[in-house]
Amino acid sequence: MSAKRRILVLHGPNLNLLGLREPEIYGATTLAEINESLAESAGEQGFEVDCQQSNHEGVLIDWIQQSMGRVDGILINPAGLTHTSVALRDALAACGLPIIEVHLSNVHMREPFRRQSFVSDVALGTIAGLGPPGYRLGLRALMERIQA
Amino acid sequence: MSAKRRILVLHGPNLNLLGLREPEIYGATTLAEINESLAESAGEQGFEVDCQQSNHEGVLIDWIQQSMGRVDGILINPAGLTHTSVALRDALAACGLPIIEVHLSNVHMREPFRRQSFVSDVALGTIAGLGPPGYRLGLRALMERIQA
Amino acid sequence: MSAKRRILVLHGPNLNLLGLREPEIYGATTLAEINESLAESAGEQGFEVDCQQSNHEGVLIDWIQQSMGRVDGILINPAGLTHTSVALRDALAACGLPIIEVHLSNVHMREPFRRQSFVSDVALGTIAGLGPPGYRLGLRALMERIQA
Amino acid sequence: MSAKRRILVLHGPNLNLLGLREPEIYGATTLAEINESLAESAGEQGFEVDCQQSNHEGVLIDWIQQSMGRVDGILINPAGLTHTSVALRDALAACGLPIIEVHLSNVHMREPFRRQSFVSDVALGTIAGLGPPGYRLGLRALMERIQA
Amino acid sequence: MSAKRRILVLHGPNLNLLGLREPEIYGATTLAEINESLAESAGEQGFEVDCQQSNHEGVLIDWIQQSMGRVDGILINPAGLTHTSVALRDALAACGLPIIEVHLSNVHMREPFRRQSFVSDVALGTIAGLGPPGYRLGLRALMERIQA
Amino acid sequence: MSAKRRILVLHGPNLNLLGLREPEIYGATTLAEINESLAESAGEQGFEVDCQQSNHEGVLIDWIQQSMGRVDGILINPAGLTHTSVALRDALAACGLPIIEVHLSNVHMREPFRRQSFVSDVALGTIAGLGPPGYRLGLRALMERIQA
Amino acid sequence: MSAKRRILVLHGPNLNLLGLREPEIYGATTLAEINESLAESAGEQGFEVDCQQSNHEGVLIDWIQQSMGRVDGILINPAGLTHTSVALRDALAACGLPIIEVHLSNVHMREPFRRQSFVSDVALGTIAGLGPPGYRLGLRALMERIQA
Amino acid sequence: MSAKRRILVLHGPNLNLLGLREPEIYGATTLAEINESLAESAGEQGFEVDCQQSNHEGVLIDWIQQSMGRVDGILINPAGLTHTSVALRDALAACGLPIIEVHLSNVHMREPFRRQSFVSDVALGTIAGLGPPGYRLGLRALMERIQA
Amino acid sequence: MSAKRRILVLHGPNLNLLGLREPEIYGATTLAEINESLAESAGEQGFEVDCQQSNHEGVLIDWIQQSMGRVDGILINPAGLTHTSVALRDALAACGLPIIEVHLSNVHMREPFRRQSFVSDVALGTIAGLGPPGYRLGLRALMERIQA
Amino acid sequence: MSAKRRILVLHGPNLNLLGLREPEIYGATTLAEINESLAESAGEQGFEVDCQQSNHEGVLIDWIQQSMGRVDGILINPAGLTHTSVALRDALAACGLPIIEVHLSNVHMREPFRRQSFVSDVALGTIAGLGPPGYRLGLRALMERIQA
Amino acid sequence: MSAKRRILVLHGPNLNLLGLREPEIYGATTLAEINESLAESAGEQGFEVDCQQSNHEGVLIDWIQQSMGRVDGILINPAGLTHTSVALRDALAACGLPIIEVHLSNVHMREPFRRQSFVSDVALGTIAGLGPPGYRLGLRALMERIQA
Amino acid sequence: MSAKRRILVLHGPNLNLLGLREPEIYGATTLAEINESLAESAGEQGFEVDCQQSNHEGVLIDWIQQSMGRVDGILINPAGLTHTSVALRDALAACGLPIIEVHLSNVHMREPFRRQSFVSDVALGTIAGLGPPGYRLGLRALMERIQA
Repeated sequence: MSAKRRILVLHGPNLNLLGLREPEIYGATTLAEINESLAESAGEQGFEVDCQQSNHEGVLIDWIQQSMGRVDGILINPAGLTHTSVALRDALAACGLPIIEVHLSNVHMREPFRRQSFVSDVALGTIAGLGPPGYRLGLRALMERIQA
Repeated sequence: MSAKRRILVLHGPNLNLLGLREPEIYGATTLAEINESLAESAGEQGFEVDCQQSNHEGVLIDWIQQSMGRVDGILINPAGLTHTSVALRDALAACGLPIIEVHLSNVHMREPFRRQSFVSDVALGTIAGLGPPGYRLGLRALMERIQA
Repeated sequence: MSAKRRILVLHGPNLNLLGLREPEIYGATTLAEINESLAESAGEQGFEVDCQQSNHEGVLIDWIQQSMGRVDGILINPAGLTHTSVALRDALAACGLPIIEVHLSNVHMREPFRRQSFVSDVALGTIAGLGPPGYRLGLRALMERIQA
Repeated sequence: MSAKRRILVLHGPNLNLLGLREPEIYGATTLAEINESLAESAGEQGFEVDCQQSNHEGVLIDWIQQSMGRVDGILINPAGLTHTSVALRDALAACGLPIIEVHLSNVHMREPFRRQSFVSDVALGTIAGLGPPGYRLGLRALMERIQA
Repeated sequence: MSAKRRILVLHGPNLNLLGLREPEIYGATTLAEINESLAESAGEQGFEVDCQQSNHEGVLIDWIQQSMGRVDGILINPAGLTHTSVALRDALAACGLPIIEVHLSNVHMREPFRRQSFVSDVALGTIAGLGPPGYRLGLRALMERIQA
Repeated sequence: MSAKRRILVLHGPNLNLLGLREPEIYGATTLAEINESLAESAGEQGFEVDCQQSNHEGVLIDWIQQSMGRVDGILINPAGLTHTSVALRDALAACGLPIIEVHLSNVHMREPFRRQSFVSDVALGTIAGLGPPGYRLGLRALMERIQA
Repeated sequence: MSAKRRILVLHGPNLNLLGLREPEIYGATTLAEINESLAESAGEQGFEVDCQQSNHEGVLIDWIQQSMGRVDGILINPAGLTHTSVALRDALAACGLPIIEVHLSNVHMREPFRRQSFVSDVALGTIAGLGPPGYRLGLRALMERIQA
Repeated sequence: MSAKRRILVLHGPNLNLLGLREPEIYGATTLAEINESLAESAGEQGFEVDCQQSNHEGVLIDWIQQSMGRVDGILINPAGLTHTSVALRDALAACGLPIIEVHLSNVHMREPFRRQSFVSDVALGTIAGLGPPGYRLGLRALMERIQA
Repeated sequence: MSAKRRILVLHGPNLNLLGLREPEIYGATTLAEINESLAESAGEQGFEVDCQQSNHEGVLIDWIQQSMGRVDGILINPAGLTHTSVALRDALAACGLPIIEVHLSNVHMREPFRRQSFVSDVALGTIAGLGPPGYRLGLRALMERIQA
Repeated sequence: MSAKRRILVLHGPNLNLLGLREPEIYGATTLAEINESLAESAGEQGFEVDCQQSNHEGVLIDWIQQSMGRVDGILINPAGLTHTSVALRDALAACGLPIIEVHLSNVHMREPFRRQSFVSDVALGTIAGLGPPGYRLGLRALMERIQA
Repeated sequence: MSAKRRILVLHGPNLNLLGLREPEIYGATTLAEINESLAESAGEQGFEVDCQQSNHEGVLIDWIQQSMGRVDGILINPAGLTHTSVALRDALAACGLPIIEVHLSNVHMREPFRRQSFVSDVALGTIAGLGPPGYRLGLRALMERIQA
Repeated sequence: MSAKRRILVLHGPNLNLLGLREPEIYGATTLAEINESLAESAGEQGFEVDCQQSNHEGVLIDWIQQSMGRVDGILINPAGLTHTSVALRDALAACGLPIIEVHLSNVHMREPFRRQSFVSDVALGTIAGLGPPGYRLGLRALMERIQA
């Protein structure tokens, strides 16, 4: 009997504040609710998700490295690190896994420095501006890619 | 008995070549197959889609204008016009409808001029790099937003 | 008895939506009302106006070319094409007629990309931010120039 | 019996040379002639104009400040200060009056540094390239706005 | 008996004005004369040319798409679209044919925005500044490449 | 009996070296001395300060998040993170507290990259170049704002 | 018996409007109130202040030059000249006095051109965004530096 | 008997401090000494000089305008206004006189913003970095040009 | 009997390696073969070519100067000097001869620094990307221009 | 008997993956092998090395600070932090030790953002592109410098 | 009896064409005439000049190196190398002699790339736009500096 | 018996001055001493070095070309040509040999224009800032690579 396929879901800095922080931008859904919803969606397709959040760039990189050989893909919202972390990019590029990048808000409607992403060109694709449902769509796309 | 909700699906220049053109980037799926798949997905949620493709910026703008009052949202892949058409942007901004922007390929992996989008900040959100399934995800997000 | 002098009035993409679109920027006057007002002003000075609108860059260029030898000046609001169309600029430069550029809104208060105009330096002058009356002022200036 | 409405007309540095200076750009009309023409146009609409010229940024700012509460609008050709004076911009923004910016020549046909204006986005609108008649058109637009 | 080889010759916006427009830049040769000369040169090598001109970006793209499978190469002067049309570039890249880009005038002697070409790096090569004879040289190079 | 008001004082990377490091720039005062001085100043106004230093971006973000609901304002010297951390900025923006940014040295006299701050526009204000006394001035301003 | 120490307080263009102008940015305190408050703070430390405001760059430079040898430091809010006056900068650099730069509003939250200061790197330090109290803090820092 | 030829010598902001200010850059010669030396050199060639200094951009412009028709050339050290004053440039361009620009220090060795000059391209030529003797050389060149 | 017309053919640095160097870019034709082919083409039109190659900028400039009065035109492939030599440009501009610039490879497909040419705007025109046949086309265009 | 000299060897984020990650860029040598080789080379010269790797910017900074007074030099490969960490730079500048920067791959052959280093100008020198042997060369240079 | 002081006069590429080349820019004076005039001026002050011209960057550098210890100053017109040669700059910086840079034409009135000089900030000063007399003025300034 | 392996060592402009020139940057070692040291190091590994220096870009390129087929690698310090010579880069790229670039000083601590290298991305790697020993390290790395 084969093991379930696994997806690492990584939430970057400050995403633990979801539902508390600037609700006019991010809505009222909490991170726990998002994670539950992802677990449910994954389960329907026979997948498991491992959801983690950290405010520490180094911790996120550690997790990506540790996931090598243990997960089949990564769904990541790098939050503020999107625009500043080459080290995170390097970890993602090195892990050799399919990656999808998610942003809750439309980064193009915000400050100009949010338009640069060090992650986008090492990911398969990007979903931005669709709020919490964007995670589910990203997960779905990732599972399809893994099953293909 | 109320009318079905409707979504305008717009495909920009050269997307009629899908399945023929540079398959190593875009895959083998044709535009007709994408449109059928969208019609099916829409139907499951009680929506109709009106799918159109043109190589003419003006024709796309005409269609957007004509859709005002007749559709509930727009799903658009502006293709090459993404990076060059303020007129298309103005039409989308003027129509007052929820809009989702889709790109088949990951624009961040291609030429630098593809990183600028005149559409992204008048759309709710953007999905890029997920290939033909990106359309279905975008449609789903748009239908959810309309129903919310 | 000599023929009346003629002015071609060109309205670029989306201006057919005037009165409908983003009224907080453009006001409630429709394009038809602007055209009537221009016809009246022109008539008082013994001029005729030929008012056209198109969402198609190519159609606008065709009209400019066809006007050569038939009109005495061009009043143009290139709308979104202002910032992106070298082809439109080339047509205006080639026609050899006096040209005045009009913008309804103050382009300097809007997005940065609206500050570049491919039309301004092939026109005699520019009027921006004065709303529909800006057209009448532009027409008046053009008629004075033609009569000079 | 109510007081006449009043408009402050400000001419920036070197405009006292009009009619003397580089006539191939500015024509042969003198500043006195422009001011007379403006007084006449204003009078027809029941307005008065107060026309002033200075080569001193500080003097122009003093006049703007002193006009607060005494005039109903400002018509200004900031000349060379257009491109360099944040202090003048701040005075115009602070006075809370409707403002129209006029330039005699088409700044887009001249040196690149003339394309930046610190005034344009604190004014209602801009008229450029129409020579001395541009002042009359600007005055007319300003009076209409005040009367609206 | 084998069919003749065929070359699509595309002239972009405003090139129908050749011989009329700004002769100090473009000379007195008309587009019809250029086309005749190309037909003659082609005939000498056993080729046929199909010469088309349009002011419409969309029409040019349509023609490129329709030429797929029917012609052996494209000779194109994209005129003003050279600097602004990613959609045209995408069509040329997608068609998979050998392409040569021609410009009548030396774009390096004109406005700075004419130095950027969206076409040059999807073409085999570029010929600029040689006037109408540049077309013949480009055709010759294209025929040689096709025969090689 | 009401609780004392509290201010979180955050010192970014390398500030633990104060008094040891490059004294020609930062002087001889140690961080402990600065913190004592702040505690004293705060006490005089009936405030408490909670002073923390870390070389870890993630730890600083954790502290900011944990302070939500427990402190009335933040005084922060983000040191090298000023110029590189969007994640820190996001945490500060999310916490909803009044913030004052302090820099010991005049960042304008140092390397050009020190002129960009990701913190300044989410803070009430900035104090730079005044050495250790700048902290006391910043604290004073923050207490006044909280008491207002 | 020794003379009192003296500080020149310079207010740049438009600051005479404080309390009148854009109160949502600058608050309701007038310049006279700020000056009185500074005189009081100075007196407590045995200092005198000489407060001056001008809309004229040249007058401000004259005052700085005349203060050489007569004052012990300069507190300056250069207002709009901050971003445009090299001559003011040169005067401040030449006078050889300790200088502190104050801005009422947070320049980083306003237009991008307000981020460049010609004054910051010839001053000891800068205080921005703290409103009228920022002047008192700046004065205090300046007096401490002079007494040190 | 013909009148002597006359040259206007203009010294910009802060040059009245020469000999006092930053002697390591400008040396110990005072402005009065420079002016005397220029008067002497001029006298030897049968010229007169009219030497003026002001910290006010407007005053310098007034003097340039008043010199029209009364002097045969202008020798100017615009000091800090070199880099910021379009109004001064416009006055110099308008006066129609031969102009030579002098800088005491080598502007290329100083801050980057000193590399841009609004004066250089309306002057015949520029002399920089040669200290007070640079004025005499500039005067000599100007007299030769006038006599030629 | 009149002398033959002459054309100087200049090959810049490293072109002596043609046929040896990076054949996937430049093909297998040697420089000697190119020169023979040019001599033949020239001879058919009654011209002579003088073909020279050097890796020394100074030698190329010497040859251009020596050709003044002795040749009727210059065909030049400046190779790496295209992008870096103002001195070569100045020599070409000074010689007063018709010039055509040739590049073997399509510079637009290579490194970004190859897009700048100091030669293009002092040449009649440019041919790029057509390989060795590009020389023959350039020669032909040059001969036609000389004969015209 | 004197203590051995000591060198801190710091490996930045993701370098623990060496030998696993993208071997076509970094080769098959593991970090442990590099460290052993460095220990051996150091031992031959009577030095000790203390080799550490972390994915955490803060941990690297902590180690640098703790090394002050305990080691004689630092050999560092900052990996992805090279391009983004001012805090790391500040720690290196503050420690007052001789530093050599090593990169395994040639950063100039990779993405443009890898060309900026915040470390290079606080290090004695840089070695890049030589693979694992680059560490040994850097160590040797560092030991020579310390012994000099 | 002491040896005469000596000045090396270096003329860069294409200056041997003076009097022949583009006389509307450079006038009719030949290089030989300039050199004679410099020899005469030098002789009057008891100096000798050694005048050299080359089109070769390397030859100019060789001459500068050989002049070390043999001349007392360098007067150089680097011509086109001004804007492109770091090697020439390095030679000038290394020789340790006083240097004055001369340009015949006003580089600010020409192409934008002529505004950058690699020589200006290693020279004492620069004289530009004064034609051949500029050399004499530069020589005079250099002799005065050497005698000082 | 096989021939010795050979390495071409190239020193660019002004490096013949080593030991004489700006010793605070380059130290007191002469080029001859460096070359001897390299010969010795090479000999220990059974290699020969051929050391050459020139101030002429063209001569350096000639030597690189002549070395093809005769040497096994190139060690080059391009000095000032590093930042300006595409021709040198092309020669290095064309020769097909392993190349190591050496700089004596840390180019990142010097003028900004020294940060761009046309050589770095055609070399295996770069060593900068280590003074004369950097050559020996570079040679060692090159010999290892050749022997591998």
